[in-house]
Amino acid sequence: MTLQGTSLIGWATVTGSRGEIRAINPATGAPLDPVYHGGSEAEVARACELAETAFGVYRETTLEARAAFLESVADEIEAIGDELIERAMAETGLPRARLEGERGRTCGQLRLFASVVRAGEWLDLRLDPALPERQPLPRADLRQRHIPLGPVAVFGASNFPLAFSVAGGDTASALAAGCPVIVKAHSAHPGTSELVGRAVQRAVEKSRLPEGVFSLLFGSGREVGQALVADPRIQAVGFTGSRAGGTALMRTAQSRPQPIPVYAEMSSINPVFLLPEALQARGAQLAEGFVASLNMGAGQFCTNPGLVIGVKGAELAAFVEAAGSAVKQSAGQTMLTPGIHSAYEQGVDRLASNGKVREAARGQVGETAHACQAGLFVTTAQDFLTEAELQEEVFGATSLVIECADVSEMQRVAAQLEGQLTATLQMDDGDLDAAKQLLPILERKAGRILANGWPTGVEVCHAMVHGGPFPATSDARTTSVGSAAIFRFLRPVCYQALPQGLLPEPLRDGNPWGVTRLVDGKREA
Amino acid sequence: MTLQGTSLIGWATVTGSRGEIRAINPATGAPLDPVYHGGSEAEVARACELAETAFGVYRETTLEARAAFLESVADEIEAIGDELIERAMAETGLPRARLEGERGRTCGQLRLFASVVRAGEWLDLRLDPALPERQPLPRADLRQRHIPLGPVAVFGASNFPLAFSVAGGDTASALAAGCPVIVKAHSAHPGTSELVGRAVQRAVEKSRLPEGVFSLLFGSGREVGQALVADPRIQAVGFTGSRAGGTALMRTAQSRPQPIPVYAEMSSINPVFLLPEALQARGAQLAEGFVASLNMGAGQFCTNPGLVIGVKGAELAAFVEAAGSAVKQSAGQTMLTPGIHSAYEQGVDRLASNGKVREAARGQVGETAHACQAGLFVTTAQDFLTEAELQEEVFGATSLVIECADVSEMQRVAAQLEGQLTATLQMDDGDLDAAKQLLPILERKAGRILANGWPTGVEVCHAMVHGGPFPATSDARTTSVGSAAIFRFLRPVCYQALPQGLLPEPLRDGNPWGVTRLVDGKREA
Repeated sequence: MTLQGTSLIGWATVTGSRGEIRAINPATGAPLDPVYHGGSEAEVARACELAETAFGVYRETTLEARAAFLESVADEIEAIGDELIERAMAETGLPRARLEGERGRTCGQLRLFASVVRAGEWLDLRLDPALPERQPLPRADLRQRHIPLGPVAVFGASNFPLAFSVAGGDTASALAAGCPVIVKAHSAHPGTSELVGRAVQRAVEKSRLPEGVFSLLFGSGREVGQALVADPRIQAVGFTGSRAGGTALMRTAQSRPQPIPVYAEMSSINPVFLLPEALQARGAQLAEGFVASLNMGAGQFCTNPGLVIGVKGAELAAFVEAAGSAVKQSAGQTMLTPGIHSAYEQGVDRLASNGKVREAARGQVGETAHACQAGLFVTTAQDFLTEAELQEEVFGATSLVIECADVSEMQRVAAQLEGQLTATLQMDDGDLDAAKQLLPILERKAGRILANGWPTGVEVCHAMVHGGPFPATSDARTTSVGSAAIFRFLRPVCYQALPQGLLPEPLRDGNPWGVTRLVDGKREA
Repeated sequence: MTLQGTSLIGWATVTGSRGEIRAINPATGAPLDPVYHGGSEAEVARACELAETAFGVYRETTLEARAAFLESVADEIEAIGDELIERAMAETGLPRARLEGERGRTCGQLRLFASVVRAGEWLDLRLDPALPERQPLPRADLRQRHIPLGPVAVFGASNFPLAFSVAGGDTASALAAGCPVIVKAHSAHPGTSELVGRAVQRAVEKSRLPEGVFSLLFGSGREVGQALVADPRIQAVGFTGSRAGGTALMRTAQSRPQPIPVYAEMSSINPVFLLPEALQARGAQLAEGFVASLNMGAGQFCTNPGLVIGVKGAELAAFVEAAGSAVKQSAGQTMLTPGIHSAYEQGVDRLASNGKVREAARGQVGETAHACQAGLFVTTAQDFLTEAELQEEVFGATSLVIECADVSEMQRVAAQLEGQLTATLQMDDGDLDAAKQLLPILERKAGRILANGWPTGVEVCHAMVHGGPFPATSDARTTSVGSAAIFRFLRPVCYQALPQGLLPEPLRDGNPWGVTRLVDGKREA
C-alpha cells in the first residue's frame, strides 16, 4: 500500500495544514517520504466529536463483539506484512528481528485483551440483594458494574514503534475497556503509524463499529497533544515518553475544568543490586548479562539498567573490569532519532564531566549517523547520596556503578532512590538476609522486583506490573503492560433497585452473561 | 472520661500552641469546653515520622491481626458509651437517634472491613508460572500482589461526626489496606474527635501495634491540613467537604515533588427525575418522600436531593404544590455550625434573588440559633441550561424544581449536569423507554443510579459506589463508601523469579494464606 501522509479521523483521511513532519532514517540521516502535516484544532475537535458519538455504541458492545474486534485489529496488522517491518526499520534504525518480535508482542497483546474481555472479570460485578425485613431499616437491592471512562487520548512512544504506539498497550487496553481511542502519532515514525492506523481503521469497519472508535492524528510540536488532552470529551490519557512531556500533560489534565487521569510512563534508571555472595560467585557472568541488557535496543528501553549498586572491593572491581571490557567491545547501535542521540550525548557528557564520577569504559563509536556509544561510569555511594543529578535518567546504553562501603549503605542508596519501574537483586542463597532487608525498601520504590534476571524484557501477562511510583509513572496504582492495564480506563457505577428491564444485562438476575460476580461478598463463578 | 483538649501523636497527648479551636453548640450558640489548639508544623512532622516508622510493621500484619485490630477499634468506640453520643449531640445539633444510628454504621463499617481484610480478595494475587521451554523466549515466574501506599491523611467531615470522621470510612478503609492514618479533626466537633481518637489509640495499644499507626491532629485554619498533605511521607489523602476545600488539597497534592492521589468527595446536587407515568400515578406520594429526603439531617447530606426534574404540566404543578405545602410545614432544624448556616442562607438568597427562579415555598423559621429554613424553588429548563450558577450546591434543605417542555428536554438537562454522587429515576412501567434513554446519560454523570427511592441513605456494602465524576469527587474511579473503598490505598507490585524464601507469604507456592489467586489467568479459590 502507498503511504498517503494523512491523518485518519474516523473514516476520513485528512491532510493536515500545520508544521511539516517527516521521518528521518537515523542510520543515514536521510528524510523519508511522504511528508505529514500537523493537525489543526478543528481536526482535534472533529476526532473528539466522533469519539464521543461512537462511545455510546462502543461501550455497550457485547463481550464477544469487542473481543472479536481486538482480534481483528491484530489480524489486520499481521496482514500488512513485511511493508510494516521495513518501514519501521527505516524510521527507527531498529533491526528486523527486534521489530518482528515487537509485532508479535503487539498482536499477542491485542489477543490477550480479547481473552480478558471475554472472561469479564474486569466488569467487577457485585450484587448485594435487597433485605426488605432488615431492622432498623431495610436494604435496597444494590448492584455494581464497571463502565469505561469515555474517549481516551494515547500518545505513541518513540522507542516501541509498534508495542507502545498506535495499536500498543495503551490503545489495546483502552479499546478493551470500551473506550474509543484517539492516537497522537509519534513524529519519529509517522509511516509506521499510518500503516498501523489504517489497519485499526479497517478492523473498525469490518467489525461494523462506528467510525469514531479510532482516529489517528499527527502533530509536530506539543499543540495537537495539548489540545487533545484539554478537549472536554477526552476522559483519560495514556503516554509513554519523557518526564518533561509527561508532567506537561499531567498539568494540562489537572487544570481542565474537569480534571482527568493521566497514565504517563516517564523515567526510570532501574537499579540493579549486586549482593555480595552473588557478586563473589559469578561476577564475570553477571557482567556479561548486565552489558547484554544495557545494550539491548541501544539502551532505549524504559527498563534499561542505568544503575548498579555493590559493595566496594575486589569483587566489584572485577565486575567493573569485566563489564567495562564488554562495554568497550560494544558496537555503536543506531539510536531512534537524531534528537534522542543528541540528548544521550549530552547526558553522557554531564556524567563524564562530573568531578565525582569516573569513566570506566566507553563503547565503540558507531558507523551510522546517530549511533549510541555505550558508557560505564563509577561513583561512590556517598557522592550519589548527596548529588541528586546522578539519579537523572540517561536514555541510552550508559550505566553508573555505585560503590558502597557495606550492605547497609546499599540500603541507604535504595532508600534515596526516586520511583522506578523495576529494581533487580542479583543474589545467591547466602544473600537472602541482605535481600530481605532490601525488599521492603524496594517495594516502595518500584513496580516490579526481579531476582537474578535483567529488567529489560517486560512480559505481557496477568501478573506483570509495568508501573511504579513517581517519576517512573504518574500513577503508581496502575500498570501499562499486562491484563490489569484495562482497569485504568474503567469506573464503578452502582444501580439501586433498578427494574430488571432497565438493569445492564450482566447484572440481571440469573447472570445472563455468565461472568463471575461477588454476591453478598461471596464470589460466584 | 474527661476531655483533655489535646492532639494525639502516637501515644503522646500534645497540647497545641496555635489558634484556638472551640466547639459551639449550634442549637444555643454556646461555646463548649475544653479549648483545643492547632498543631504546629513540628507536630505534623512528628506524626508523619511515627506513621512512616509504623508503616513497615503495620503493612505486613497478617490478615487476622489486621482484621482483629479493626474490630477492636469498633469495640473501643462502643465502649465509650453515651458520653460519645451526648458530646456529638452538643457539638453538631444532630438528634440522638441519628447519632446512635451513625455510631452503629461506623462500627459496622469497621467490622465489614475486618471481613474484607480476612477474605483477602483485595490482595489481587496473580501468578503466571515460569515457562522455561517457551519459544522464542522462556517466560520467568511472575507473581503480583497489592501493597498499601503508605501513610494516609484523612480529613474529618462536618456532617457525619462519626461515620465520615476520625474512625469513618476513609480511616477504616486505609487501615484495612495497611496504611497508617493521620486524621485532621474537623474543628466543628473536636470533643467527639478526641473521644473517638482515644478509642483508636487504645485499640492500637491493645493490638500491640506501633504507635504511629494512628495520630489525631487539630488545626483551626488550613495550615495543618496543607502541611500534612505536603509532607513527603504522606502517600494519599481522604477528604469529605466543600469543593473549595477539596480542590485546594488537590492542588497541593499535585504540586508536591511527588504528586499523590487525593480522594475528595466534594459537591453534588443529586438530581431526581420524575418520569411522566410515575408523576401522574403517585405525585402526592413522591412529594412526601421527596420532602422527607430533603429534610433529612437538615439537608446536610452529600446525597441531598437538590434538583428535581419533570415535564411541565398539571402533574408537576400538583407535585410542587404538595411538596411546597410539606416544605412549609417543615420545622427548622439546627444546622451543624454557624458557618454552614450562614453559607446556607447565602445560597438560598442567591437562588431567591435570581430573576429566573421563583420561590414555591419556605419552611418554618427554627427556634434554635442556627436553624435551617427549608426551601423549594422552581425554574425552567431553558433557564437552567443557560445559567451555570443554578447548578451550584446549596448545602442544606433547599431544592430546585426544573420544568421541562418534554422528556427530551429532561435528557438535555441531564446531559448538562456536572458530575454527581447520585441520580434518581422515579418511574413506573410505562416510563421504561424514557428511563432507558436517560440511563446512559446518567451513568456518565453519577456514581449511583436509583429507581423509585431517595438518594439519602448510603448503604455500607460491597456493591455501593459513593463517588462519581468531578466535581462530585476528585476521582471517579473509586468509592469512599463500601468495601471497594480499600482499593484507593493500594498499588500492585510484581515479583519476578524471586526465591520462595524471599517471596511475600501469600504469593508462595501452595497458597499458604488460602486466598483466591488468578493463576495463568484462571481464578483459583
